Amino acid sequence: MRFHTRKWIKPQDLNPNGTLFGGRLLEWIDEEAALYAIIQLENPKTVTKFMSEIDFKSSAKQGDIVEIGLEVTKFGTASLTLKCEVRNKMTHETIISIEKIVMVSLDENGKAKPHGKTEIEYVKNRLES
Amino acid sequence: MRFHTRKWIKPQDLNPNGTLFGGRLLEWIDEEAALYAIIQLENPKTVTKFMSEIDFKSSAKQGDIVEIGLEVTKFGTASLTLKCEVRNKMTHETIISIEKIVMVSLDENGKAKPHGKTEIEYVKNRLES
Amino acid sequence: MRFHTRKWIKPQDLNPNGTLFGGRLLEWIDEEAALYAIIQLENPKTVTKFMSEIDFKSSAKQGDIVEIGLEVTKFGTASLTLKCEVRNKMTHETIISIEKIVMVSLDENGKAKPHGKTEIEYVKNRLES
Amino acid sequence: MRFHTRKWIKPQDLNPNGTLFGGRLLEWIDEEAALYAIIQLENPKTVTKFMSEIDFKSSAKQGDIVEIGLEVTKFGTASLTLKCEVRNKMTHETIISIEKIVMVSLDENGKAKPHGKTEIEYVKNRLES
Amino acid sequence: MRFHTRKWIKPQDLNPNGTLFGGRLLEWIDEEAALYAIIQLENPKTVTKFMSEIDFKSSAKQGDIVEIGLEVTKFGTASLTLKCEVRNKMTHETIISIEKIVMVSLDENGKAKPHGKTEIEYVKNRLES
Amino acid sequence: MRFHTRKWIKPQDLNPNGTLFGGRLLEWIDEEAALYAIIQLENPKTVTKFMSEIDFKSSAKQGDIVEIGLEVTKFGTASLTLKCEVRNKMTHETIISIEKIVMVSLDENGKAKPHGKTEIEYVKNRLES
Repeated sequence: MRFHTRKWIKPQDLNPNGTLFGGRLLEWIDEEAALYAIIQLENPKTVTKFMSEIDFKSSAKQGDIVEIGLEVTKFGTASLTLKCEVRNKMTHETIISIEKIVMVSLDENGKAKPHGKTEIEYVKNRLES
Repeated sequence: MRFHTRKWIKPQDLNPNGTLFGGRLLEWIDEEAALYAIIQLENPKTVTKFMSEIDFKSSAKQGDIVEIGLEVTKFGTASLTLKCEVRNKMTHETIISIEKIVMVSLDENGKAKPHGKTEIEYVKNRLES
Repeated sequence: MRFHTRKWIKPQDLNPNGTLFGGRLLEWIDEEAALYAIIQLENPKTVTKFMSEIDFKSSAKQGDIVEIGLEVTKFGTASLTLKCEVRNKMTHETIISIEKIVMVSLDENGKAKPHGKTEIEYVKNRLES
Repeated sequence: MRFHTRKWIKPQDLNPNGTLFGGRLLEWIDEEAALYAIIQLENPKTVTKFMSEIDFKSSAKQGDIVEIGLEVTKFGTASLTLKCEVRNKMTHETIISIEKIVMVSLDENGKAKPHGKTEIEYVKNRLES
Repeated sequence: MRFHTRKWIKPQDLNPNGTLFGGRLLEWIDEEAALYAIIQLENPKTVTKFMSEIDFKSSAKQGDIVEIGLEVTKFGTASLTLKCEVRNKMTHETIISIEKIVMVSLDENGKAKPHGKTEIEYVKNRLES
Repeated sequence: MRFHTRKWIKPQDLNPNGTLFGGRLLEWIDEEAALYAIIQLENPKTVTKFMSEIDFKSSAKQGDIVEIGLEVTKFGTASLTLKCEVRNKMTHETIISIEKIVMVSLDENGKAKPHGKTEIEYVKNRLES
């Protein structure tokens, strides 16, 4: 699994109890999955269709740095299935892991559109595939 | 199921494709579940522990109004299990439904703390229980 | 008066003195009035035209939950007049009450447009009227 | 009246109809009134107590620049009364004017605290008094 | 140098160490430079092209008020060069000064477009030129 | 140079002309530099002290994905000097490059504090050094 995007937990990311607001974390994961899929499928019109269950294993506090990891587990015809893990860079604890996030490639009319991809592509001059 | 909080979809809530950003919606749901549980359990230190799978059934667009519904499905010793549905007030379509959101009541040290509740309370002068 | 939308006061909603930022509260009220009027008048192009005086009776602090109540006091030809009250769900105190918020229904050119409504409608499958 | 703070209307400041979101404008006014009063009364614990009626005279669109003007109309024992006008820098139209915004100076316990000021002070090396 | 826009430092503007987040300050400066240039060049399509080195001389904390000053140092054919200083209104310390911010006026196709201005204009009914 | 954090350009990140708001980009860079330095210097109290000149070479539009790259160019006694480049993942163009960003490690009293580091550390179980 590759960990790219990292976030620094600021006051605006906290819930009233002073720990990382779960909703903010879900927002970060959804954005990361979307941009990962867009790069892989080379289609900006790629949306989140499904997330499997989410277990909040540990939390994080102000000033902690979290990193979001994703890896492809399956290429469907019009979909891409990802696995996600969010770790606390300070404590090395896993905060959340999601077994399955299904992203779907759409055409102009919002219908599922085959993407023709079957494997991760490592493109020259791109950091990750 | 009671639908309380409503949101008006503004430009800042959209993904780059011009539809409701899924991450924003998850943020809204997490906040609604938290405040619902806090009111029921009468403990402000209540956190999200688990969400079952999330199926994005339909989307919404700028100017649409969504409403978030929750109902209690189980009272645990220190937990409260909720069911959630988000609907588009304009189209009456279901956007997301989540079968199970588990909220946990914590004590000062962040340990699970029995809440002593076994049913929804309808309190005078409070809109919903 | 019906209280729908509820907000959980997070660090990003505070003023530098650590209480609920009045400007944030006014933002919440304006959004709630807009979506309430849009649903009633069935016209998404409905805007805030007037607010009567606002008395900040009490404040709220981080972690408190506020709920925003609205009721219709008058149907004009192209307008809808609302009354608003914001309460602190924790302390049951009134935070703000606004006697009169006038919303106006507009046509495509931004001119006032008669909405033809004379009473609150209770529509099947809609939570509130 | 002196106009200080200026805002550039960006997508995140719009309502779903594409004009300046009224709630955002009220947020800007409340912040400007607070910082103006804090500077005059030399007490950071100064809060908004009252706003007289608000008439939305015109709107503004993306890319417009608005400027917020304030002037003192009365020094009370613990209060400061301001008059506010918001103008569209592009069209020179008045967007909102508020006859009376009452700010109150508080002590450590949140009680009204006499501020001892009776006139606007023009301090060396400060742009406005 | 004229100081217009003022900001009140709220929790959402802090970094995790509890002082003003540098990134937020840069965001405020960029917005102020843009709207200043737009007003002077009378072209809304004016963008930031260059900033000279930035030295963070002092910081600011929650509740402080900062003011952003700008002055024109040069009129180019299609550009406007500004000098910027940000001061802490409470402590009178300089937080940041930037010797040179170059704004460029663009045409519809995003090409540099001569603006025909050679000096600051003081327009009637406008606060500053 | 290693590129970690990636951002998906959403409506809230645009200036009124519909391209990436420069201020937002500077905010992202400052956050990325801070968290990179914190990880390297193992001191959460690390702040931005200096940025060399910034040349906005190209822009980006809604839906584009940008990635932020950093590399260490010098270890000082209490400082860390970074070089930064931001690229558009879609067009492979460089958006901004900054030759020198100086981060400083502080002690509890806000004084420069020697960090004792002389080279990038590749730590087991950490994605990048």
